[in-house]
Formats: sequence, structure tokens, C-alpha cells
Amino acid sequence: MGRESFWTTEPDEFLRVGDGFVLADQPTDAHFGFDAGKAEGKEALAEGAEILGDLQERLFAAGTVGERRSVLLVLQGMDTAGKGGIVAHVVGAVDPAGAHYTGFKKPTPEELAHDFLWRVAKETPAVGHLGVFDRSHYEDVLIGRVRQLAPPEEIERRYSAINDFEKELEFAGTTIVKVMLNISKHEQRSRLADRLDRPEKHWKFNPADIDERELWDEYQDAYQIVFDRTSTEYAPWYVVPADRKWYARLAVQHLLIRALETLDLGWPEATFDVEAQKARLAAS
Amino acid sequence: MGRESFWTTEPDEFLRVGDGFVLADQPTDAHFGFDAGKAEGKEALAEGAEILGDLQERLFAAGTVGERRSVLLVLQGMDTAGKGGIVAHVVGAVDPAGAHYTGFKKPTPEELAHDFLWRVAKETPAVGHLGVFDRSHYEDVLIGRVRQLAPPEEIERRYSAINDFEKELEFAGTTIVKVMLNISKHEQRSRLADRLDRPEKHWKFNPADIDERELWDEYQDAYQIVFDRTSTEYAPWYVVPADRKWYARLAVQHLLIRALETLDLGWPEATFDVEAQKARLAAS
Repeated sequence: MGRESFWTTEPDEFLRVGDGFVLADQPTDAHFGFDAGKAEGKEALAEGAEILGDLQERLFAAGTVGERRSVLLVLQGMDTAGKGGIVAHVVGAVDPAGAHYTGFKKPTPEELAHDFLWRVAKETPAVGHLGVFDRSHYEDVLIGRVRQLAPPEEIERRYSAINDFEKELEFAGTTIVKVMLNISKHEQRSRLADRLDRPEKHWKFNPADIDERELWDEYQDAYQIVFDRTSTEYAPWYVVPADRKWYARLAVQHLLIRALETLDLGWPEATFDVEAQKARLAAS
Repeated sequence: MGRESFWTTEPDEFLRVGDGFVLADQPTDAHFGFDAGKAEGKEALAEGAEILGDLQERLFAAGTVGERRSVLLVLQGMDTAGKGGIVAHVVGAVDPAGAHYTGFKKPTPEELAHDFLWRVAKETPAVGHLGVFDRSHYEDVLIGRVRQLAPPEEIERRYSAINDFEKELEFAGTTIVKVMLNISKHEQRSRLADRLDRPEKHWKFNPADIDERELWDEYQDAYQIVFDRTSTEYAPWYVVPADRKWYARLAVQHLLIRALETLDLGWPEATFDVEAQKARLAAS
């Protein structure tokens, strides 16, 4: 399997949330493992897209012959952190037939009448698929915690409910890649200002984005608790510096490539007699 | 809106199924409206992808402010006609967050226990989305007819049921683009042979593909009836010469671009006071 040629060091170790991880100490503008700038980063992304596309096709092929494997990318981050760009430019490079995108919005009354995992479980990827959660069940312990949308004991319960849910998913064959896109408060201001400055971006802006921005520190605390409680062996978190969009895309692409490479998928063997079918075809 | 620069004549009139259309008279290797070859065709596809991506984002944006518009691409064709390539290379160029892919396979027992449109209606695109049906309800009057999977009177009933279903969809705001990828029997042999020759393609081959190939003429007849009965003002069929994959992709991309251009979508106006929000942001 052709691994990407451009990493100078494996970025995983810089991104993975391990023991003693402190979000406040993380740089938001680093480009761990990649010794060049934006132009080179864009070229690298195109190289990686070929690799990711090939691996995704192998995953899909394996699914057609009963291999119970799938990959789930969970994307979190403050508003403007770049989740949409990851979806468009990283996930967008794979065949839509093998990908399943879900954007989780403010829960509907029906969803709120259920356990917080109800709507999430329904969107987990089918065998052979790459699933993407644009926001996720983690909103229920992020905005859920900051805005006190549930009683404290329910918020508390959710961390272990999430771990149990993800453990079962992993057992069932889903490789979970959880990514927090980490931008600075300063960078967020600049990106929101850009949305306000450009009429064709106004539809992406919501005054409520500034309400959430004003709770920046509370959200950072809520993320820290998420990392402390839910970065597990079977479903680790990755915190990706995201002030440079090109680097964040490259890093998330790499995490997906690694997840797929680890599955070590070959092409399925024919379940029919190839020569006999060639003869049938020639006669048809 | 920047229309593609490369068409010498509008291909629509050559592709659209109108009165007196005869499938047997259609060339499978033409490149109507495009006066160049494969290399130029691939470059043109990249230009078109930019245009399609922009238009799709406008559709998505409109959906966020209550415009009830969507587009549905219905893909049909014999095995190897290139449906998967259209999905990967045409639909694959738009943001996955705004696209919804459904591949319709052999119906499950649960699906068979329902009307043939039951599973289809559930997958129609949400407002603001580009939906893609990789096979569709037309299978129920194609393989359904050729293999006599339902009584003749039920097959007969389905054509008008389809027309009613599509009329309602169109009324509700969905632009329907129905495409039959038209390959020659000779080209199909060559593509099936390629799958048999290459071990990494074996998973895409199914001996049943040759069973269907042996009923080629019956399928052509069933398609002709589909065109006669279901190419309507509100949901016309397009028959796209598909022996040249690059041309089929360019033509389908164009049909989507035209469908979106016809909607004439601008960017939504801000629903908030832009200057007031700039001031709030600056203070935050």
C-alpha cells in the first residue's frame, strides 16, 4: 500500500489525546509532521486523496463479501473550525456510493423525546462504508453541559454511555476516528468577520454563533472533560491544529488513511470460476 | 452564472427523449455538442465540476432559508454502462453534505411486502439537496417486466403510478433528471471481459450479469416502453451515448448544471443586521 510520501514524521503522536493531555497547552497553528507550507500542503492533499480513494474502494469491496468493517469519522470543533471544509475536501474525494454523511443539528422535539444516542445509532455506517458525523453525540456533553440542557446527573451519565456505545461499535467492526478541530479564539473572530463581510457567506452566519463564542472558555473546559473521559483505547480522540485549513485537512486525511491501512484489506477473491465465465461471456 | 465554455452546440436536444424517439436508432458512441476527444473531455469535466459545485452550494444555501428546491438524478443503464463512474466523477465533485446517494439493489423481503414505490419515496432528496438514484423505481418495469417479477396488469399499472409519483415530486419542488446510459452490446462485452481479466475487479462481476446480457433485446424493448410511457414534460428522459465514458460524464454533468441554472438561485439575503453583528463580534 502506497503510504503518503510527504510526512517527515508520523503526525499521530502529536495529535492523539493521551494521559495528561491539556487542551489549553495545544498550539492551534502547528503543522506537525509536515515541513512545508500551504502550496505544498495542497499538492500533498491531492496525493493523499488518491490513496484514500483506493483504500475506501477496498473497504467497500470487502463489505460486498461479508467483511464487517467500516470507518466512522466524528468531527467536532467550535463554529468556523472547518468541519465543512473537511467534509468537502477530504471526504469529498471518496466515492459518494461508499460514504455516508450525517450533519447533526439542534435536536427536533421527536429526537429530544428519546435518549441522546437514539438519533446517532441510526446513522452509524453500514458495512463497507465510511461514515462521517458533522457534529455528533458529543454535542450532548458540550453545548449540553455549557447550556445546562439536561440535569447534571444526566450529563454525567452520558460520558460512560458514550464509551459503552463506542465500545460496542468498535467490537462490531467500526473503526472510530474522533477529531476535534482546534482553532484559536482569534482565528474564529477572523473567520466570522469574513462571513459578515461577504454577502455570499451571510447564509452561513447565525447571530447565535456569537452567543456561543462568548462562552469560549466554558466550551474549552467542556472539551477538556470530553477528552479526559472519552479518549479510550478503542476510540481515541485526535486534536488537530486547525488555524491553517490546509494542514487540518491533510491531518484528518492522514488519520483516515491510517485507519484504513490498519485494516490491511486486499481485493476479494472471485467466488466464481473465472475461466468458465470468460467462456460464457465470449459465447454471449 | 458561468456556463461551461466548451459546448459547441447545446447537447440537450440530442439527448432528450421526445415524441417518436426510437432507442434502437440511437448511436452509443456519439459525442453530441463536444467537438474534441478524451483528453479535452477530461479537462472540460474539471471546468464543469467547478460550475456544478458552485450551483450546488447555492441550492444548499437556498434550502437553509426555506426555498423548497431539490434535484434528483435518476441513473439507469445495463450492467457496466457507467452508473458508478457518474456517481464517483460527476456527483463526487459536489460537497457530500449536500448530496444524498441511494443505490437500489434487489429488493429485500420487507421491501417486496410493500408497493414498489415504498422504498423509493423514503429516499427522495431533502430540500436543498442533490439526490442520486443508482438504479431506481424503473427497475420495477425493466427487470420486473423482462423477468415477469409481477403480474402483467401490475407491471402495466406501474407506468402511470410512476408518472403520478414524479408529478407530485416535481410539484413539491424537485427537479427530476432521468438518464439512461446507453452502451452497445459490444461495449458491454469488452467491459465485462475487463472485469474478468483483472483480479482487483472480480468483486464487481457477478455471473448473473451474463444472464441479463443474454436478455439484451428484451431489456432494450423494456427501455423503449419506459421512454414511450414515462418521458413527460415534468420529468423527461435523457438517453446519453455511453460507450465513451468521458462523454457520458460530461453530458450528465451538463444536465445537472442546466437543471440548477434553471432554478436561477442567488445567495440568500441576511436575516440579521450585518453591521450590528460586526459590532458584537468586534466586542467579543
